Amino acid sequence: DDSEFESDIDRITIGIKGLDEMILGGVPQRSLMVVIGSAGTGKTTFGLQFLHHGLKQGEKAVFITLEQTREAILATAEERGWPFREYESEGYLAVVALDPVEMANSLSSLRGDISRLITEFEADRLVLDSVSLLEMMYDHPAKRRSEVFDFTRSLKEAGVTTMLTSEASEDNPYASRHGIVEYLTDAVFVLQYVRPSNFRETRLAVEIQKIRDANHSRETKPYEITADGISVYRQANIF
Amino acid sequence: DDSEFESDIDRITIGIKGLDEMILGGVPQRSLMVVIGSAGTGKTTFGLQFLHHGLKQGEKAVFITLEQTREAILATAEERGWPFREYESEGYLAVVALDPVEMANSLSSLRGDISRLITEFEADRLVLDSVSLLEMMYDHPAKRRSEVFDFTRSLKEAGVTTMLTSEASEDNPYASRHGIVEYLTDAVFVLQYVRPSNFRETRLAVEIQKIRDANHSRETKPYEITADGISVYRQANIF
Amino acid sequence: DDSEFESDIDRITIGIKGLDEMILGGVPQRSLMVVIGSAGTGKTTFGLQFLHHGLKQGEKAVFITLEQTREAILATAEERGWPFREYESEGYLAVVALDPVEMANSLSSLRGDISRLITEFEADRLVLDSVSLLEMMYDHPAKRRSEVFDFTRSLKEAGVTTMLTSEASEDNPYASRHGIVEYLTDAVFVLQYVRPSNFRETRLAVEIQKIRDANHSRETKPYEITADGISVYRQANIF
Amino acid sequence: DDSEFESDIDRITIGIKGLDEMILGGVPQRSLMVVIGSAGTGKTTFGLQFLHHGLKQGEKAVFITLEQTREAILATAEERGWPFREYESEGYLAVVALDPVEMANSLSSLRGDISRLITEFEADRLVLDSVSLLEMMYDHPAKRRSEVFDFTRSLKEAGVTTMLTSEASEDNPYASRHGIVEYLTDAVFVLQYVRPSNFRETRLAVEIQKIRDANHSRETKPYEITADGISVYRQANIF
Amino acid sequence: DDSEFESDIDRITIGIKGLDEMILGGVPQRSLMVVIGSAGTGKTTFGLQFLHHGLKQGEKAVFITLEQTREAILATAEERGWPFREYESEGYLAVVALDPVEMANSLSSLRGDISRLITEFEADRLVLDSVSLLEMMYDHPAKRRSEVFDFTRSLKEAGVTTMLTSEASEDNPYASRHGIVEYLTDAVFVLQYVRPSNFRETRLAVEIQKIRDANHSRETKPYEITADGISVYRQANIF
Amino acid sequence: DDSEFESDIDRITIGIKGLDEMILGGVPQRSLMVVIGSAGTGKTTFGLQFLHHGLKQGEKAVFITLEQTREAILATAEERGWPFREYESEGYLAVVALDPVEMANSLSSLRGDISRLITEFEADRLVLDSVSLLEMMYDHPAKRRSEVFDFTRSLKEAGVTTMLTSEASEDNPYASRHGIVEYLTDAVFVLQYVRPSNFRETRLAVEIQKIRDANHSRETKPYEITADGISVYRQANIF
Ligand SMILES: Nc1ncnc2c1ncn2[C@@H]1O[C@H](COP(=O)(O)OP(=O)(O)O)[C@@H](O)[C@H]1O
Ligand SMILES: Nc1ncnc2c1ncn2[C@@H]1O[C@H](COP(=O)(O)OP(=O)(O)O)[C@@H](O)[C@H]1O
Ligand SMILES: Nc1ncnc2c1ncn2[C@@H]1O[C@H](COP(=O)(O)OP(=O)(O)O)[C@@H](O)[C@H]1O
Ligand SMILES: Nc1ncnc2c1ncn2[C@@H]1O[C@H](COP(=O)(O)OP(=O)(O)O)[C@@H](O)[C@H]1O
Ligand SMILES: Nc1ncnc2c1ncn2[C@@H]1O[C@H](COP(=O)(O)OP(=O)(O)O)[C@@H](O)[C@H]1O
Ligand SMILES: Nc1ncnc2c1ncn2[C@@H]1O[C@H](COP(=O)(O)OP(=O)(O)O)[C@@H](O)[C@H]1O
Ligand SMILES: [Mg+2]
Ligand SMILES: [Mg+2]
Ligand SMILES: [Mg+2]
Ligand SMILES: [Mg+2]
Ligand SMILES: [Mg+2]
Ligand SMILES: [Mg+2]
Repeated sequence: DDSEFESDIDRITIGIKGLDEMILGGVPQRSLMVVIGSAGTGKTTFGLQFLHHGLKQGEKAVFITLEQTREAILATAEERGWPFREYESEGYLAVVALDPVEMANSLSSLRGDISRLITEFEADRLVLDSVSLLEMMYDHPAKRRSEVFDFTRSLKEAGVTTMLTSEASEDNPYASRHGIVEYLTDAVFVLQYVRPSNFRETRLAVEIQKIRDANHSRETKPYEITADGISVYRQANIF
Repeated sequence: DDSEFESDIDRITIGIKGLDEMILGGVPQRSLMVVIGSAGTGKTTFGLQFLHHGLKQGEKAVFITLEQTREAILATAEERGWPFREYESEGYLAVVALDPVEMANSLSSLRGDISRLITEFEADRLVLDSVSLLEMMYDHPAKRRSEVFDFTRSLKEAGVTTMLTSEASEDNPYASRHGIVEYLTDAVFVLQYVRPSNFRETRLAVEIQKIRDANHSRETKPYEITADGISVYRQANIF
Repeated sequence: DDSEFESDIDRITIGIKGLDEMILGGVPQRSLMVVIGSAGTGKTTFGLQFLHHGLKQGEKAVFITLEQTREAILATAEERGWPFREYESEGYLAVVALDPVEMANSLSSLRGDISRLITEFEADRLVLDSVSLLEMMYDHPAKRRSEVFDFTRSLKEAGVTTMLTSEASEDNPYASRHGIVEYLTDAVFVLQYVRPSNFRETRLAVEIQKIRDANHSRETKPYEITADGISVYRQANIF
Repeated sequence: DDSEFESDIDRITIGIKGLDEMILGGVPQRSLMVVIGSAGTGKTTFGLQFLHHGLKQGEKAVFITLEQTREAILATAEERGWPFREYESEGYLAVVALDPVEMANSLSSLRGDISRLITEFEADRLVLDSVSLLEMMYDHPAKRRSEVFDFTRSLKEAGVTTMLTSEASEDNPYASRHGIVEYLTDAVFVLQYVRPSNFRETRLAVEIQKIRDANHSRETKPYEITADGISVYRQANIF
Repeated sequence: DDSEFESDIDRITIGIKGLDEMILGGVPQRSLMVVIGSAGTGKTTFGLQFLHHGLKQGEKAVFITLEQTREAILATAEERGWPFREYESEGYLAVVALDPVEMANSLSSLRGDISRLITEFEADRLVLDSVSLLEMMYDHPAKRRSEVFDFTRSLKEAGVTTMLTSEASEDNPYASRHGIVEYLTDAVFVLQYVRPSNFRETRLAVEIQKIRDANHSRETKPYEITADGISVYRQANIF
Repeated sequence: DDSEFESDIDRITIGIKGLDEMILGGVPQRSLMVVIGSAGTGKTTFGLQFLHHGLKQGEKAVFITLEQTREAILATAEERGWPFREYESEGYLAVVALDPVEMANSLSSLRGDISRLITEFEADRLVLDSVSLLEMMYDHPAKRRSEVFDFTRSLKEAGVTTMLTSEASEDNPYASRHGIVEYLTDAVFVLQYVRPSNFRETRLAVEIQKIRDANHSRETKPYEITADGISVYRQANIF
């Protein structure tokens, strides 16, 4: 039956062809999501595409980068044909580069600043790239976890649909580097490299591990990153 | 023979189709149980369904969440067609959101508060979602263990049938994240992802690892999470 | 030849069908033994059955639990048809529930108390369930080891036949959680789950890893826990 | 379609036959790259060849070694027929040997010095061999990460195309030793040993794991180090 | 050729049938040896048999136990038909039980005491059972290593042929628990359990990993522990 | 082509039959080399043979042992028919036994002493057996690494061809115990045990992992240790 489509919760689409079809019930608005993957799996692209999809529909968006410069993010988006500079000058987009070391040191005050930014800006979509770089700046695990917990909570309260990016654990592609965000978020997307045993060609594969309150495919599907962004091949298989 | 059904101990059912049939002897009332699983395996759904099953029978229930807001929990339940808001307004249900950081800092006083809440509320069923988030807030393992030990003991003394949820260890799906609750509880349910080697479709599987004083199946069975909650397929096999 | 049966050392039986036949030479009296297994493998049942076997023969017994209440232990025994309450009221049995946190903090004075209890009570059999919970309460490994060492030594000096239960290491079913008791004890019984690769039914298997000064089978044999306790199937095989 | 070739970003070549063909879109100028590999996989050779390729085209280059002496680096280059002493005397090349212990202790001031060196020297290409030796000199992970983060950022700001070399993690050839540089860099090249199960001959294999804003092959290809440097065999396979 | 048999160094035999034949060149007198194995593999038996072999030939021997009581050691030996009490009363043998905690705390003074004991007693063979229990009592690895180093050196200087017993590493049967004694000793014997994949019967296997200045078999051979001690089956194979 | 043989750098041979043929280009003089292997793989023999090869040709040599006594080293050499005592009395050889604990404590002054010894003695070849024992004496990884770094640098500056021995990592035979020397040295030889899955006979295998500025075989070849030292079988295979 189709009961999952009759829900009261407003649903949004991510903006990634193939993947949105795998999210059968749609992601609830104002969800806190995370995309987990190791270096080069396309996390930043995923985040940019997610924002572009909203911007195209007239939404407002904020991209916070802890890893790259504002300039690099804008250039990457434009490479893909997404007019982020235009969106910025028209007041629809804010790209903010934060220093992770400073951010970690003043997170409690920054939490307020970010919430205010989101509220005043009336942002619909937010990306933080990456939460791992923030997590890494804490030496004590309990301190790290409580800070991340408070931070994710303040993001949820700010009422914006948020996509965090996170590095994967070195041993387990289905776990985040510090093993906490996947439990604090409403949805988890896992990007991974699949390396065949004959050492030929590495493939990229995506799995939806969790979407609270939504039905979704549990298949692992191949995807590619091209000049146009990420495309997931629902009809294809990894092997 | 049927000697295990002639026991003096009162037994309850969980409320999950298929799974209750696997618990041959029934779970003793006032047991402390834990459901272990990684992100998205359905632990929160399991807990909500466990409460709903009691509420339907006129029992009283408490849901303590350390991960989500009250609002999110109520919405999730209603999505599944379980009238949690009604139960609350009729005085049968209390949904409490606690801050894990604060909880860890004042656990000894909170223990008393929670016990009192349970007693005054005359709760029959309690869910704590998740004990891992509480455990994570301690830096020193011995401190963590002694706090968790005292906390579980006070829950048992409060005389309520309790279901804890716990994240799984990253290396071993049959162990909890911090490796202690499975030893302090009377029953252990293990939820896990089974990923086939051909990277096609991930399956969900449940095993009853332990129920003190009860006979139970030792089979691993597939289950699904749908708009109606969790269903375990006793007739099917994973592979 | 049969020279191992002509030994001067007095030997006892455990009281578990099938397993006692695997202990060819018998366990020397006043031995310190450990049963290692993960949650639900039957360690507590093993300990209760070991005491019941002695009590039936008119021996005196002490059960120290760090995990459960006195009441829970008595109820579990009675569920299995072992009249532990009777034994207690007749002065043959003492069931003691200790708080592991307090126990760890005052172990040196408790050592004396326990020795005195054993001597005054004239206990023949003692179970401590579980030594892991005691070990866990120490933060520093060297401190933990020296305390456990002194504690096991004082048990041996008290002249009682003792069965410790211990959680298994998460990575290695043949090692105890903290990797020390198996070296300090005279006999080691390993209980483990064997999970077939097709994810069907989990089996329980027992191996005698060591009995100082005794011949024993080195086979791994299936066992079951039923309403009557543990039975080992000597004629059957795991696969 | 060929849209990835019409980008506005200036692209450079590395100077390694076979590998440059695998970088379909070219590496953006002023990128920060890293080559990851265990001892002897050819990281230093890779860095020298990268500089030589620029020097041949009239570019200016800086080689910073934390592992070897200036003399050793110059000798190695000359062994391969690359006239590094000539380049130095003509003012096109600077080879600098830094002490990693001192470097770690005064990194914040050194950052300024290195930036000034690059700017005054008008360096087009820079190699730092190896970033792992720098990372190793810090005891606290968070301190290490923040220092490395600030250092890589200052390199990017200096506007030079940079190749870092990094030791591989002992457990995972696709991760750097300390697991951070692969996230801070724009491109990641992985060099690894492939050892056949029959213990015959060890092979060398390269994979491009990531190039931000560029299309690239995802194949793993064999390479050799000869007296002339590194050659990647695009037509061959590892097995 | 037979040149290894013409050596100037005096050689001794261990006293274990089958194993002595595997030591083709004989163990040099005054060697420091270690037998590595997990609980129950027969390390204590190995040590007792080694002493008994010397005692039978009129040598003098010292057995230092950190794990058991004097009484337990004497009883175990007598169980095997080795008249250790007689040897003691005749002044050929000293069995000493030391407390590992105290030993660790006063090792530098004890070193002198032990050396003096050995010299005054004119001991030919010494067993220390087990060095792991001593190692465990130190919290800081460097302290542990330097103490063990100094201790082994003083044993060598005392001019006695010594057999240490050591627990195996949990992950690697060929490494000692703390991974140092195998490097400080002249000979390494590895005892291990071999468990077949069908979970039938566990076997015991011995390998000579190293004997400085001696030729030896590199085969892994099955052995058994019986009422008469350890016998190695040179003609048999594990599988 | 043969261009690698026309190099300007002076090359030396190790003195191990079979292995020198695998080093196609020869090891550059004044190189810093390391031989990595677990206990008993022949590291000390490798070092002695390397010195003997130089001594036979009239070179001068220093052997520094941190593990054994001077006497033990001289005896081992003479066992193999290498007249080390003669070389010593003729002033061609110095065998020095250092205490690793003291060495670690006064390494900065010792560095000067060793350099002076090498220079005054005009040593051509040096062996340090083993660098792991030195590394182990430091508790803090960063301290350890900086000390080892400075020490290897001072050895290189002393202008002697040096062979360090190092214990292997317990998990990875291709990595040194502390994972640093293989990056600081010009050449890496890996000695390892290869154990067949049928538990029959353990074999010894050698691989040249790296020689800076030299061509070399990448094959893994069997070797044996006999009364005459190490012989590598270039024509044979492990399996
Ligand atoms: N309406 C639905 N239809 C199908 N699956 C659903 C539905 N709602 C939730 N799920 C599944 O349940 C999962 C979340 O369950 P939850 O109990 O929150 O897991 P956990 O608490 O273990 O993280 C989602 O990831 C999704 O796969
Ligand atoms: N009446 C019974 N019938 C069948 N199995 C039972 C019965 N009672 C207990 N068990 C089994 O015994 C297990 C608990 O044994 P227990 O001795 O408490 O284990 P442990 O102490 O190792 O955690 C339960 O998980 C259940 O599988
Ligand atoms: N009389 C005997 N007959 C057969 N096996 C015995 C006998 N005595 C001891 N064993 C075996 O020897 C083992 C103990 O040997 P021990 O030397 O104490 O081992 P370890 O010191 O390595 O723990 C026992 O676990 C048992 O398997
Ligand atoms: N124009 C393009 N064509 C093809 N692939 C591209 C293109 N641009 C980027 N990529 C791919 O995307 C990867 C980087 O994606 P990115 O989102 O930065 O990953 P992450 O943030 O996970 O490190 C590059 O490594 C490259 O493989
Ligand atoms: N005369 C010999 N005949 C055969 N093998 C020998 C002889 N002398 C030593 N060996 C072998 O050499 C090994 C020791 O070599 P050694 O160089 O001391 O190793 P390491 O320093 O790596 O511990 C011994 O374990 C033994 O196997
Ligand atoms: N002339 C040569 N011929 C063949 N191989 C060489 C030559 N020079 C160096 N090599 C190879 O290159 C390796 C060293 O490369 P290098 O760049 O120093 O590695 P890394 O910096 O990763 O340790 C040597 O181990 C050797 O295998
Ligand atoms: Mg990114
Ligand atoms: Mg949940
Ligand atoms: Mg129990
Ligand atoms: Mg290098
Ligand atoms: Mg022993
Ligand atoms: Mg050696």
